[in-house]
Amino acid sequence: MDKIPILKMGPFLLVTVQVDLYDRLALGLESDLVAMINKHESKGVLIDISSVNIVDSFMGRILGNIAQMSRILDAHTVVVGMQPAVAITLIELGLPMTGVHTSLNVEKGMELLKEKLLDTDEPGNNSHDNSE
Amino acid sequence: MDKIPILKMGPFLLVTVQVDLYDRLALGLESDLVAMINKHESKGVLIDISSVNIVDSFMGRILGNIAQMSRILDAHTVVVGMQPAVAITLIELGLPMTGVHTSLNVEKGMELLKEKLLDTDEPGNNSHDNSE
Repeated sequence: MDKIPILKMGPFLLVTVQVDLYDRLALGLESDLVAMINKHESKGVLIDISSVNIVDSFMGRILGNIAQMSRILDAHTVVVGMQPAVAITLIELGLPMTGVHTSLNVEKGMELLKEKLLDTDEPGNNSHDNSE
Repeated sequence: MDKIPILKMGPFLLVTVQVDLYDRLALGLESDLVAMINKHESKGVLIDISSVNIVDSFMGRILGNIAQMSRILDAHTVVVGMQPAVAITLIELGLPMTGVHTSLNVEKGMELLKEKLLDTDEPGNNSHDNSE
């Protein structure tokens, strides 16, 4: 496999990570996602990692990078379907996952993104909180 | 990878095929999908094959099987994101893809499923056309 497919779903993009994110694949995903956000003016990115059993610092960093890149382009990132063991590993590795929101599953993640979309649509609310 | 993740999105299920569907993986996907349709009473299955470059008769048969199994459980199957070369190969292989609907992308596929959902919701329309 040479690239991870990115699915457009309304104002959001959906990525299902099913394989190990080795170097080239991860960099390709980053650039593809940024290009897609730019092209479709997407407001949110959903990354499903339900089939990821093993996480390392590289994977954690990639997710953090994607979230920060998306945020600059005014899109929120929600990582969904994280397995409990992966959550434990991420914390034990000391990875902060800055700017990454999480939800239990795709549906809840999409609800979260819709809420964020409504929040930013409200007049007078132009804050871009990166500290979440 | 030992299984392909199935994402629940409202009344539909979404599967992104990113790797070769070898024997065990394909059988696992079939049984997982049927179990998910049963559990969530799903009305449609979306299968994204946009990252599938090479298709063989086995893959074609698996897609046909999934569509027929889903149909028995009252769910429609839409295969989306098929690459032109894959469409050519499927026809040249003489695979009928019985019961499989196709759409260009996930959004159009979801619209198609929503139309089908409305069609079957209408009173007096209880036909189950398998010949499509």
